[in-house]
Amino acid sequence: MSTRDAKSWILIRDELLRRVRERVWEPGALIPGEVELAEEFGCARTTVNRALRDLADAGLVHRRRRAGTRVAVNPPHKATLTIPIIREEVEARGGTYHHALQQRGTRPLPAHLGGVFPLPDGAEVLHTVTLHYEDGRPYIHEERYINLANAPDLADQDFARISANEWLVQNAPYTGGDMSFFALPADAALADAFDTSLGTALFAAERSTWNDQGPITLVRMTYAPGFRMRTSI
Amino acid sequence: MSTRDAKSWILIRDELLRRVRERVWEPGALIPGEVELAEEFGCARTTVNRALRDLADAGLVHRRRRAGTRVAVNPPHKATLTIPIIREEVEARGGTYHHALQQRGTRPLPAHLGGVFPLPDGAEVLHTVTLHYEDGRPYIHEERYINLANAPDLADQDFARISANEWLVQNAPYTGGDMSFFALPADAALADAFDTSLGTALFAAERSTWNDQGPITLVRMTYAPGFRMRTSI
Repeated sequence: MSTRDAKSWILIRDELLRRVRERVWEPGALIPGEVELAEEFGCARTTVNRALRDLADAGLVHRRRRAGTRVAVNPPHKATLTIPIIREEVEARGGTYHHALQQRGTRPLPAHLGGVFPLPDGAEVLHTVTLHYEDGRPYIHEERYINLANAPDLADQDFARISANEWLVQNAPYTGGDMSFFALPADAALADAFDTSLGTALFAAERSTWNDQGPITLVRMTYAPGFRMRTSI
Repeated sequence: MSTRDAKSWILIRDELLRRVRERVWEPGALIPGEVELAEEFGCARTTVNRALRDLADAGLVHRRRRAGTRVAVNPPHKATLTIPIIREEVEARGGTYHHALQQRGTRPLPAHLGGVFPLPDGAEVLHTVTLHYEDGRPYIHEERYINLANAPDLADQDFARISANEWLVQNAPYTGGDMSFFALPADAALADAFDTSLGTALFAAERSTWNDQGPITLVRMTYAPGFRMRTSI
């Protein structure tokens, strides 16, 4: 396989993509077959096939063995979210970062968290509460549970110099996770952390991650009043 | 290019991916060169190159022309969000959907929206307020502005049978957009819509989309109390 060949399916994919985006081929329409497209582009049928597979993987076309390929009527539009190291996120926009560890202790997993963080009965977890600051102002209140059985190097970490967020991103690779985003009213601890009224509407993100050995961590990040999580589509 | 060749870089990419994920190669480590990997896998160097390019595109390795390829210390973990047709989302989980158009009118673009929705001074927009229901209960309150200059077929639409959400997803393809997610306290209209107290913390998503002809729509979806937006990583 030459480099030129490796790239050619991408060029064809891009042209097919253009036709879908610019509605040369309307939503729901049957597009020409592989043989016809291969002739048009002067390439191998397998190259067209590879390009179509990419569009199908992205949900932009639907392929049926006998019925041919149709343009999706409602293609998925994807947005990307990344899990940042908060320090790096703050510093990337020119801010000054620091964090304060407010609580750190070992405790049995609270029963109400058993569903999202499945551990044996009575399993001990490390519980931390951290306040992350941007330019001296509280930015994120982080409450975290860490599965001690799945983070063996953790005993050495006091999270004073490096936050639990940063340590885990760097040291506890995960294979999967669930995230959810929601609004909550400030309770006493959050109202105090952000110097705001009880009940203030706050944006929060909860995340649980795991690897082959089981759960790693469950964390709730609650953001300062007025925060917006932004992304592009 | 045979089908076997087209797939072989993916097999090699998956093996490299496994080594990165399982820390056979540690974060920050220099990995073997292309020639060495091509020998190990018994394939062309260009195939290894294609696989490495894929990992680099995903941010999992960093390639330097002379310094070789290193495993990323903090690789991005991506989550995908899709923009659903609310009717389909509700029906997919077995619910019954209906919507009610509460307001529909043409008006000049409100000044405070000029930043996110750049239109000429005095441009007219279509403003709609829709309440989306799941199993008879209010699920999403939608407030929307539509650029009339960029949605020519819109005049025929009363959004009674098909919601603006569904019509636009089906008929107004966009090339890009911005999204943001935040918490807000229920104002009188939202408290009324969701039969809840003034000030209740609600989750909201704001989205603006555009194509080559300019902005298409700006919409704020505010969700019923207790809603969580969920995704996987």
